[in-house]
Amino acid sequence: MSEKIIKPSVITGFPEYLPEERILEQQMMDTIRAVFESHGFCSIETPVVEKLEVLLSKSADTNKEMYVLGRLQAEEKEEAKMGLRYDLTVPFARYVAQHENDLVFPFKRYQMQPCWRGERPKLGRYRQFTQCDVDVIAREKLAPEYDALIPAVVCEAWQKIGFKNIVLQISNRKILAGFVEGLGVEKVGETLRVLDKLKKIGEDGVREMLSELKLNEKQIAACLKIAKINTPDLSFADKVRNLGVQNDMLELGLNELTECVKLYASLCKVPYRVDMSLVRGFDYYTGTTYEVQLVGTDFADSIGGGGRYDNLASTMTKSRLPGVGMSMGISRALGVGLKLGLMRTGAKSPTEVLVVNVEDTDKSKMLTVAEKLRARGIKTEVYLEGGKLVKQLKYANDKKIPYVWFDIDNMLKNMETGEQTVADPDTWAPNK
Amino acid sequence: MSEKIIKPSVITGFPEYLPEERILEQQMMDTIRAVFESHGFCSIETPVVEKLEVLLSKSADTNKEMYVLGRLQAEEKEEAKMGLRYDLTVPFARYVAQHENDLVFPFKRYQMQPCWRGERPKLGRYRQFTQCDVDVIAREKLAPEYDALIPAVVCEAWQKIGFKNIVLQISNRKILAGFVEGLGVEKVGETLRVLDKLKKIGEDGVREMLSELKLNEKQIAACLKIAKINTPDLSFADKVRNLGVQNDMLELGLNELTECVKLYASLCKVPYRVDMSLVRGFDYYTGTTYEVQLVGTDFADSIGGGGRYDNLASTMTKSRLPGVGMSMGISRALGVGLKLGLMRTGAKSPTEVLVVNVEDTDKSKMLTVAEKLRARGIKTEVYLEGGKLVKQLKYANDKKIPYVWFDIDNMLKNMETGEQTVADPDTWAPNK
Repeated sequence: MSEKIIKPSVITGFPEYLPEERILEQQMMDTIRAVFESHGFCSIETPVVEKLEVLLSKSADTNKEMYVLGRLQAEEKEEAKMGLRYDLTVPFARYVAQHENDLVFPFKRYQMQPCWRGERPKLGRYRQFTQCDVDVIAREKLAPEYDALIPAVVCEAWQKIGFKNIVLQISNRKILAGFVEGLGVEKVGETLRVLDKLKKIGEDGVREMLSELKLNEKQIAACLKIAKINTPDLSFADKVRNLGVQNDMLELGLNELTECVKLYASLCKVPYRVDMSLVRGFDYYTGTTYEVQLVGTDFADSIGGGGRYDNLASTMTKSRLPGVGMSMGISRALGVGLKLGLMRTGAKSPTEVLVVNVEDTDKSKMLTVAEKLRARGIKTEVYLEGGKLVKQLKYANDKKIPYVWFDIDNMLKNMETGEQTVADPDTWAPNK
Repeated sequence: MSEKIIKPSVITGFPEYLPEERILEQQMMDTIRAVFESHGFCSIETPVVEKLEVLLSKSADTNKEMYVLGRLQAEEKEEAKMGLRYDLTVPFARYVAQHENDLVFPFKRYQMQPCWRGERPKLGRYRQFTQCDVDVIAREKLAPEYDALIPAVVCEAWQKIGFKNIVLQISNRKILAGFVEGLGVEKVGETLRVLDKLKKIGEDGVREMLSELKLNEKQIAACLKIAKINTPDLSFADKVRNLGVQNDMLELGLNELTECVKLYASLCKVPYRVDMSLVRGFDYYTGTTYEVQLVGTDFADSIGGGGRYDNLASTMTKSRLPGVGMSMGISRALGVGLKLGLMRTGAKSPTEVLVVNVEDTDKSKMLTVAEKLRARGIKTEVYLEGGKLVKQLKYANDKKIPYVWFDIDNMLKNMETGEQTVADPDTWAPNK
């Protein structure tokens, strides 16, 4: 065997967790799953690899960050034409278009899988990152109630994984688009994209960029006024109307958003703010838009967002598939949550009880105790190899296993308090 | 927007499941996870992508099937040097070598993730396949008891996911190697590899290949005799000894295997067969070897296997890391299990109760019922958009949702039996 030693390491930006961090990630993902399934969303997963033509069917923004695949010793041409997904939206669109006839609509799905982008890593940004996307898709027409359900379920999930202090930012693109159109502006899309940057580049920056788009002073002033409307209640509608612009799309948007926010508030206790500057970069959003923001921390990026779209998969099917969805950044949340102390690592093992071997010969007692505990759902490890007791206790201690069971006299030790008691393997249960 | 429609499809050999199949896969993976965690094995996951030097550090057999990655528009050189893992063993070896100082040994882990090989797909063989590996790793010395624990836990998992009719095939490489050495054969490794093929190529094939390795008639006859020893009990040891070959390694192997099988039988009720022809292709196994086989079907391939090895990561660390592990082929089992009727798809949704909207106006009643059911762990979906009742019932029917709750008078319909009853949302529970 070769004696050459290579340094064991992962590629930068591909996070890898130690057992205690992985346990936390598992808990997070279990909780998110439980919330979505409790509302009837089903899990789907798509292959890590997609055809390049599918990946390239959407936008060109992410192309240069995309990873493509080939075989180390390629014999076939086919495989040169595939890549790793850079988001879950494109594979989901492909999935629905491909399996349209086998799915029941409205189709409610969540998808919790990694994506890949070859960008420079920093805090909360990785080359491999897991996210959870949740969407409802219909054929032809999706009821407006889902615009309230999606953020309600997503905010419930955020709270249950420990992000208690959050706010839902919500808007509806029709309002801003209708308003800008009503002002007589020609380049509506470009104007919206500039207004979306208000928080980043400030009022002066927006003013300058809007001038470049040939908006006049009056238009610019009106745009800035509406973009600054930010209310924790339904008063946004009157504030917008008071700006005096008349437009059908604007009026439709105001009504849609009012109904949506009302229903949302009856579904979910997480506070919302109607934020007129919220546009979201993606062109395909056509109605309600969302972002979830942490409150009371200096982490300014959102931890997720989404919106309503008219047509999920226009490049892959002629069926019209309207939907609404949001995304939760799991890897980002884990990174940020640990950094901000919103979550904490604990044990290095799922084990609740370690059965140790004091009498170094007969293993049957240990096995019987373990079997009884496991039968009642208590995760139980047996220190099969025996040996010095001090070594066995050190193992429990190092892994932060909460209880140790001695195979003589059913003596049980609480490793945190040090307390020792006699316990019955048929009835005893750990404190949780 | 472009009107060009591309055909939505996945690349051949990359399986993708419909919701009802995915629910089955989830149940399978949940059960496997629960079994491993109940015995104190912790989950780890490694990034999908590894450095090429890590992937190439093991064997060269799989090189030509390996997928390598690049960026669509690469600016950096680094990324040309990575690939998708083709098994979980190499990433695990890298993980343990890299994090050695942060892990507590014996380290018991399971890992349930996809791997990729660019081979021709067929039943039970895919280009993307999920497997579950379970290993115990120690530093310097791993107690022999783990050789019995690993197959006991793995067989428990197989049974709990529905593969009731299985047998554990078990052997110990030292027996065959010691025996062949004791016969005076020079090319021990090559001889073992030939004997491993007994079931595939038959006695004549083995005879021919052994002649090519320059074994004499007597040696060949003895090799065939030992390779055909196959016992459901401990009698294998006497049968081997009766062949009259004396060798220290052989004797050690017989003792190890006897102890291992004894302990295994006390840990697990799944029957075993000691099969002397079982060598397993991998060179790095040095002691006990296993395969799990379906009984009473014509699916002849094993559904998993493994063994004991002296050193997990000799190319990546100078520490000696002995271990024992097994692998379960999840994708293969799902494919085969569905084909053989060992598992069956059911509902297309996790929903247990659909609350339908009979009174098309007020949603608060529906929401209150759903909240109460969810609070007691019952997965409940609300048909928020309302509309015609027949459409709402069709939705429940199409998704095979077992119960429908009407928002008037708390009327509950069992969709399977058609029975209608009045139910209390604070106390009612579904039959499971």
